[in-house]
Amino acid sequence: MKDFTLDNLTAEAVAAYTTNASRPRMAHILGSLIRHLHAFAKEVELTEQEWFEGIQFLTATGKMCDTKRQEFILLSDILGLSMVVDAINHAKGGRGTESTVLGPFYVEGAPEVDSGVNIIKRDIGSETVLVTGTVTDADGTPLAGAMLDVWQTSTNQLYDVQDPAAPKWNLRAKIKAHDNGEFSFVSEKPVSYPVPTDGPVGRLLEAGGRHAFRPAHLHFIVTAPNHESVTTHIFVEGDPYLDSDAVFATKADLVAAFESCDDEKLAAEYGLKVPFTRVRYDFVLLSAATA
Amino acid sequence: MKDFTLDNLTAEAVAAYTTNASRPRMAHILGSLIRHLHAFAKEVELTEQEWFEGIQFLTATGKMCDTKRQEFILLSDILGLSMVVDAINHAKGGRGTESTVLGPFYVEGAPEVDSGVNIIKRDIGSETVLVTGTVTDADGTPLAGAMLDVWQTSTNQLYDVQDPAAPKWNLRAKIKAHDNGEFSFVSEKPVSYPVPTDGPVGRLLEAGGRHAFRPAHLHFIVTAPNHESVTTHIFVEGDPYLDSDAVFATKADLVAAFESCDDEKLAAEYGLKVPFTRVRYDFVLLSAATA
Repeated sequence: MKDFTLDNLTAEAVAAYTTNASRPRMAHILGSLIRHLHAFAKEVELTEQEWFEGIQFLTATGKMCDTKRQEFILLSDILGLSMVVDAINHAKGGRGTESTVLGPFYVEGAPEVDSGVNIIKRDIGSETVLVTGTVTDADGTPLAGAMLDVWQTSTNQLYDVQDPAAPKWNLRAKIKAHDNGEFSFVSEKPVSYPVPTDGPVGRLLEAGGRHAFRPAHLHFIVTAPNHESVTTHIFVEGDPYLDSDAVFATKADLVAAFESCDDEKLAAEYGLKVPFTRVRYDFVLLSAATA
Repeated sequence: MKDFTLDNLTAEAVAAYTTNASRPRMAHILGSLIRHLHAFAKEVELTEQEWFEGIQFLTATGKMCDTKRQEFILLSDILGLSMVVDAINHAKGGRGTESTVLGPFYVEGAPEVDSGVNIIKRDIGSETVLVTGTVTDADGTPLAGAMLDVWQTSTNQLYDVQDPAAPKWNLRAKIKAHDNGEFSFVSEKPVSYPVPTDGPVGRLLEAGGRHAFRPAHLHFIVTAPNHESVTTHIFVEGDPYLDSDAVFATKADLVAAFESCDDEKLAAEYGLKVPFTRVRYDFVLLSAATA
């Protein structure tokens, strides 16, 4: 009969999941997962108390998840795993806009609106920003039918889903670019903010001696027909957390200057007062065939 | 500023958790965990869809946990991790009774009862078994004050906490051994049974093409003053699942013969009818100093 020991447990467990697995891909993933999981426990000589703390940590992480909070995505983010998966799947070779983490606060189904919209649904005296740019292919050809799904925190450091006082879809929208690829919208200038620290992830950051801040950013999922969509951020140049993002998601090419603008005509067009803050970012999507 | 790439993400994440960690041990564990987690994702080139299925799987596993069900312990068990941790922490060198998994159905606080007790609280016509044995040190000296915390499934393949019809503490007790180290109790002969398959763990076993069965066993946590406690099972010799335990927890030394006995005197002492089933197992605890 089987006598499981430290010497044979890993091979036996891998064999158990790979011999009869219905899908070869599943067997490959489970085999690799088991090998790394066992190797981790052996490498650190995990004690039973530490193992149990891990069980309790994972259980609490699951309990923290609901329709507005995904603590396991946040955990993946702060361990750098989300960015590893992003990098594996979106090697752009410098040809398209770089991607970065989705984060745990994306909500599907934001209302579709025309370019030029103001997405601030509550006035809390925030600094506004005019965001403009284009969506093109790698050759600079405008992509008709491009859509920018945008979301961000408010000046109070909270996403609408974290803030009971925020109107629904505050600082969220799906913005339809013009057929010439140009888009614009008015929003609040994003601020740096801490990821939620009232759950297991907060305790882990504290144990690791890490701050919880993310540098200020706007989230985007940019799509266009027949092109690979990109999930990314625009970061605010000069933010003090650009060098120590809690979720390791910064990329130099995604940082943009938020500059003061005194263009009276533009101000009038968007209902702003001079001087106002402006940022420009041009998104480049790879064709679905080459991505 | 930091530009995170596939080449530097692992080193950057490890450094983030080890530079300022409050406890060196925590830094060591987190560093190893991050290295293995990233290496796993790179090794299998994890897709975003697979990553998201993993997030959903872990979330569902957390949601499945309650006061009577610990799906993360079950997950650790079926991936062989629990046995790796057990083996790391309880290398006995052949001197003491081997340990094995705790499993997800242990409940603290079972009533303390004297040796000789019948722990069947509901008659469902099961085959009964007389369990006898001793608790000694490695030299065979009886350990006064030894206690055996025992629990098991009923013949219907369910632990009391899984079975709304079962009386509280059915087939569970803390049995006080005599000062000469001897103990005995009457229970149901254990049967092989499937681990719960109505949650994420069940789906994982199915994806891996594995059956969910555990060979029949009695659970024990055996303790004695000044000695290392042992968390273990007695397995039923001849069980068809001894070679393919769903949680990789079998050890040859923990298998015992459940034999027919026609001792009229013994039968009368325990209120049994001949022939009855009997099993004997002698537990050996290492002294706390040498363990």
